[in-house]
Amino acid sequence: MAAVQSNAPEDTLGPLLNPGSVAIIGASDNPARIGGRPLRYMRDAGFSGRIYPVNPNRESVQGLPAFASITAVPEPVDTAIIAVAAPAVVDTAEACAAANVKAVIIFSAGFAEMDDDGRRRQDALTAIARTTPMRIVGPNCLGVYNSALGFFGTFTSTIEGGRPTPGQVGLVSQSGAYGSHLSLVATLRGIGIRFWVTTGNECDVDVAETIGWLARHPDVSVIVAYAEGVRDRERLFASLALARERGKPVIFQKVGRTEVGAAAIRSHTAALAGADAVYDGVFRQFGVYRARNTEEMLDVAYAATFGTFPASRRIGLMTISGGVGVQMADEAVERGLEVTPMSDAAQARLKTLLPYASPRNPVDITAQAFNDLTLVTANLDAMLAEGTYDAIVAFFTFVAAAKAMVEPISETLRAAKRRHPDCLLILSIVGPADIVRRYEEAGCPVFEDPVRAVRVVDALSRFSEAFARPTPPLARTPPAPAPLPAPPIGEHTAKRILAEAGLPVVEERLSSTARAAVSAATELGFPVALKIASADILHKTEAGGVELGLATADDVAQAFAAVTGRARLARPDARIEGVLVSHMVTGGVETILGVQDDPTFGPVVMFGLGGIFVEMLKDVAFRVAPFEEDEAHRMMREVKGFPLLDGARGRPRCDLDALAAALAALSRFAAAHAGHLHSAELNPVMVLAEGQGLVALDALIVPKR
Amino acid sequence: MAAVQSNAPEDTLGPLLNPGSVAIIGASDNPARIGGRPLRYMRDAGFSGRIYPVNPNRESVQGLPAFASITAVPEPVDTAIIAVAAPAVVDTAEACAAANVKAVIIFSAGFAEMDDDGRRRQDALTAIARTTPMRIVGPNCLGVYNSALGFFGTFTSTIEGGRPTPGQVGLVSQSGAYGSHLSLVATLRGIGIRFWVTTGNECDVDVAETIGWLARHPDVSVIVAYAEGVRDRERLFASLALARERGKPVIFQKVGRTEVGAAAIRSHTAALAGADAVYDGVFRQFGVYRARNTEEMLDVAYAATFGTFPASRRIGLMTISGGVGVQMADEAVERGLEVTPMSDAAQARLKTLLPYASPRNPVDITAQAFNDLTLVTANLDAMLAEGTYDAIVAFFTFVAAAKAMVEPISETLRAAKRRHPDCLLILSIVGPADIVRRYEEAGCPVFEDPVRAVRVVDALSRFSEAFARPTPPLARTPPAPAPLPAPPIGEHTAKRILAEAGLPVVEERLSSTARAAVSAATELGFPVALKIASADILHKTEAGGVELGLATADDVAQAFAAVTGRARLARPDARIEGVLVSHMVTGGVETILGVQDDPTFGPVVMFGLGGIFVEMLKDVAFRVAPFEEDEAHRMMREVKGFPLLDGARGRPRCDLDALAAALAALSRFAAAHAGHLHSAELNPVMVLAEGQGLVALDALIVPKR
Repeated sequence: MAAVQSNAPEDTLGPLLNPGSVAIIGASDNPARIGGRPLRYMRDAGFSGRIYPVNPNRESVQGLPAFASITAVPEPVDTAIIAVAAPAVVDTAEACAAANVKAVIIFSAGFAEMDDDGRRRQDALTAIARTTPMRIVGPNCLGVYNSALGFFGTFTSTIEGGRPTPGQVGLVSQSGAYGSHLSLVATLRGIGIRFWVTTGNECDVDVAETIGWLARHPDVSVIVAYAEGVRDRERLFASLALARERGKPVIFQKVGRTEVGAAAIRSHTAALAGADAVYDGVFRQFGVYRARNTEEMLDVAYAATFGTFPASRRIGLMTISGGVGVQMADEAVERGLEVTPMSDAAQARLKTLLPYASPRNPVDITAQAFNDLTLVTANLDAMLAEGTYDAIVAFFTFVAAAKAMVEPISETLRAAKRRHPDCLLILSIVGPADIVRRYEEAGCPVFEDPVRAVRVVDALSRFSEAFARPTPPLARTPPAPAPLPAPPIGEHTAKRILAEAGLPVVEERLSSTARAAVSAATELGFPVALKIASADILHKTEAGGVELGLATADDVAQAFAAVTGRARLARPDARIEGVLVSHMVTGGVETILGVQDDPTFGPVVMFGLGGIFVEMLKDVAFRVAPFEEDEAHRMMREVKGFPLLDGARGRPRCDLDALAAALAALSRFAAAHAGHLHSAELNPVMVLAEGQGLVALDALIVPKR
Repeated sequence: MAAVQSNAPEDTLGPLLNPGSVAIIGASDNPARIGGRPLRYMRDAGFSGRIYPVNPNRESVQGLPAFASITAVPEPVDTAIIAVAAPAVVDTAEACAAANVKAVIIFSAGFAEMDDDGRRRQDALTAIARTTPMRIVGPNCLGVYNSALGFFGTFTSTIEGGRPTPGQVGLVSQSGAYGSHLSLVATLRGIGIRFWVTTGNECDVDVAETIGWLARHPDVSVIVAYAEGVRDRERLFASLALARERGKPVIFQKVGRTEVGAAAIRSHTAALAGADAVYDGVFRQFGVYRARNTEEMLDVAYAATFGTFPASRRIGLMTISGGVGVQMADEAVERGLEVTPMSDAAQARLKTLLPYASPRNPVDITAQAFNDLTLVTANLDAMLAEGTYDAIVAFFTFVAAAKAMVEPISETLRAAKRRHPDCLLILSIVGPADIVRRYEEAGCPVFEDPVRAVRVVDALSRFSEAFARPTPPLARTPPAPAPLPAPPIGEHTAKRILAEAGLPVVEERLSSTARAAVSAATELGFPVALKIASADILHKTEAGGVELGLATADDVAQAFAAVTGRARLARPDARIEGVLVSHMVTGGVETILGVQDDPTFGPVVMFGLGGIFVEMLKDVAFRVAPFEEDEAHRMMREVKGFPLLDGARGRPRCDLDALAAALAALSRFAAAHAGHLHSAELNPVMVLAEGQGLVALDALIVPKR
């Protein structure tokens, strides 16, 4: 895995998004047409740069002098918009590159998303981007904008539904239509989008690179990204690591969680989608919040722009409705937030102030408290000073939206923020936009829905946890390993290789005679298990090649004959090396550790509990290899069955450190053999009680052919 | 369980909610005070009934002549509002009853929610309601309204945030503050609330009764309810059954899903809350949709007012953004909706019309289709005619919000609704309110968020399924049973009683000597299990009282001595009846069937799978007893582990009919012994392969003491 680059690369996206001069190739005099809109939008927004319409058939376009070609434009422009028919696009792009245009935005459709001709045209564009300094956005995209500059290099009609305001959010979307929807919904919600980039078919500029550029930009503090899949893992990792390092939250929506959804992706785009569950792992590894839909994505982005990320998961809930207090508590607990009660002393004091109140947490001050605002203040102060909360959600609904309330409550909140600047204060208020704005100016995100406010606390505290992790999150590069043997690799060899990689495997002897098996059993200690040893027999149980719980020398001798006999019968062609003898391991919790070669992310490590957990509940966690023990600890805690390992219901606690070490070792093994390993699996791995380690009973390594 | 009443009861809530005359006791001249607001709100809203302010200290109130007491009012009023201090409330209510007031609404707080004095005052109110014809709403409530009549018997200041419009929704909320929040949010969303009732401490009128009244009212078609707990199960069941029978969806928010949430309920209200998971069962049994938060509740209510409930779970998805198509498909699949593909022929035809489109489902027509609206129409027609969908969600976002688009698209939708009136068409559009209204007038609910639109299809199709069930959903009343024996009831007796109730239990012999045990084993067939038989020993395994897998007569004789010996040693005081001998049952899926006596709902039946499913994942389903086999079939399908019973991953399918029969039999047993049964459990119950039934291996009955 590439280390994070400490020196910023040359800023080749800068001219694209902060252009001093823009050409529009295929510019239309009709301001409603695709080639006419960017000009109209830029002039409406007061873009101060130079605009050059290019149209060989006209003298002027929307009142500006038109040029016959990009070559005729009197200066090398920073950004050229290409809005011509698909067959003319490649020539146009070549002309732009020749004219030293720094970047082009290609609106036109009819490329890889359509047919083979389109694919060839797109490949030609990629070649131009690779062989010239010119950067390319698209094709088949809706363009970009920089709202602070009034640069609208886009034909999205959402601009007409509400012009974006320059805020702290950078948004990048593979999909133009969905990116437009997001832009409009955000604008209508008062969320200011500073930069907006739709990447379309991504022949050059992609979502991953754009995230990195946004992470470097000083005016962007929150990054919102949408993609159906990612092509370049190194670029994505570097960008996400950079954003995390700079304390900029990335909220990512990656669709295709279900089989039907993933099939829909394949049917409409050329994007390569890795296994969806792997994305969950990648996002957690890099501290990215994965949003499930528009609402959640914009809720989190909005609250993140206030810049306070709770240092703990302790949440205080304040309410004027007991019932809403319960709703918020339910949501908080289900999201793993801690609804810690106030101290007894603080509760007693609040009860004196407000006999009607429930002072525990949720703190129910009832609507009556608003008859004497000092009571609201006193309650808030007590929660801030004594509650040890890093976030407080207050449900004030319409009561705080009355005109007379705004000033005194805002002042209370401002004072509270001064005294406790690291505590996130979120309000749930229903009121007109101007009143909501006043509370926002006091430093508080405002949500109409109290439950959505609680959800956001969960998201922001996850960022805080991710930002606090040491940099870089990536593990040390593993030493160059000995190459894997040629396939097929038998169980015995697989175990030896994994043992050398630091994974504890069961002690066993390869015995080629019954006598050797008996002597191995005596040495290892009864009872033992016998398994046929043959790289050609993958399904040993089905081939009758396994006997368990053999308690005596006689049993072993008989079993040797039975196992080898049945295996020969079942698979006459198999090369049989002998029989593996191992001591029976009892106790422990059954787990599965695996490695897969993800089409997008390369070697990824999988962890799950045995039995129904993996098989039926698909209860597994992924991480990109390699990673360290601390990441492995987080990873194992993601599976629903984790309490079984953690000593649930009176069971002994398992050796979690040993498990973390094994996962990290497996991840280093996987990374070291990247490109040569198809998959590996240790199944079952029995995790024993604390201090007793773990042991893999079976192992499989499948090299790439 | 009471049968549904076919004759409507006397409409005693009618005068409360449709009053011709209203008295306000404690009326204030200050229109901002609690006693002043109702008068102001009613006059602002043009209430046409007679209003009588009652205030002994004033000649007039807000320009109306004031009366010294309710007795001085010149007619017996329909509804009196009581807004006086708590200590004066009981006398005031008595005076109202004496003056033949039909109903009172008590705003005042300071009753059971506060202290023992308050509890006594509340009991006095309950006594008045019981002994006179007068109905009482509250105390500690925010009142009621009937928006069509302009009757605002409430002091909620939300009215000032937007006056409710008379629509088809009836809303009842135990919480005044949350009910007010709901009213305002609904009003701002354009959802018309016709009747609004907050029940507060519920000394008389409660949420359950109000639901029944709303179910009977011809102008209400959708019922929204909020409660922290329910007191009267019969009233709730009758009301819910009536609503279902009349095809009126009930959307219910019951809070307190988590332990912390439930504790918050106990700390702020006197409501008795039954186990939360039992509510899930009750709601499903009665076809009620349980909403988790405000947004979901109002989303479903809004869409339900359009009156189309999809007859199947097949959903068609139409989109102008491929990415949003994927999002919608993900959500649909995760909610168990069926994203069935279009026929190959229909797909081929659409592909001809729109070469860019993905015609499978989601049908991605791309934004380009809007350049030629006939393409949109053709696609919609094809989906309606050939897709066999009962619901279609179309993501048109801002593209359909352009002024020029509204008329042609609305006409297309109207035509579609005429041809396919039973298909629910939902639009996802971002646009100004007046444009949204036009699409609503064409018969389509409009959501900004496409994912929320898909969620609503799930909810509405659940209603359709519930409405289609035969009436009544309640099971036949069980015959009067023989009373349970006195506790403690030993395993052998428990099994006999349950066997007589129709539950298959393992065949066993109670043997008091080793010789008898051997002969029983021979008769039943080896291998057998031996268990100590003693009503005094509940934990047989811990007492060493169990031996399994005994294969020979000698084994049985030895085990008899061991089991009885160890049990005597462990529990010298226990009365030992002997040893139970049973044939070892092998195979099948382990399940648990139980009965609990819920504080709210009485006897409820629980079902879950054995092992980690119940123990760790809390994966259980509840139903109120009694119920029939069809309900049992729905119940068993609710647990996550159901695929294990249904033949997941090559396992044999279990005998689901036998399981349904057992659950129904257990529910009849539980109902027959209601009031006398503390709990019962059959654990484990092995469900065998299809046609082979099931068998309970252990059973426990605990009568109430």
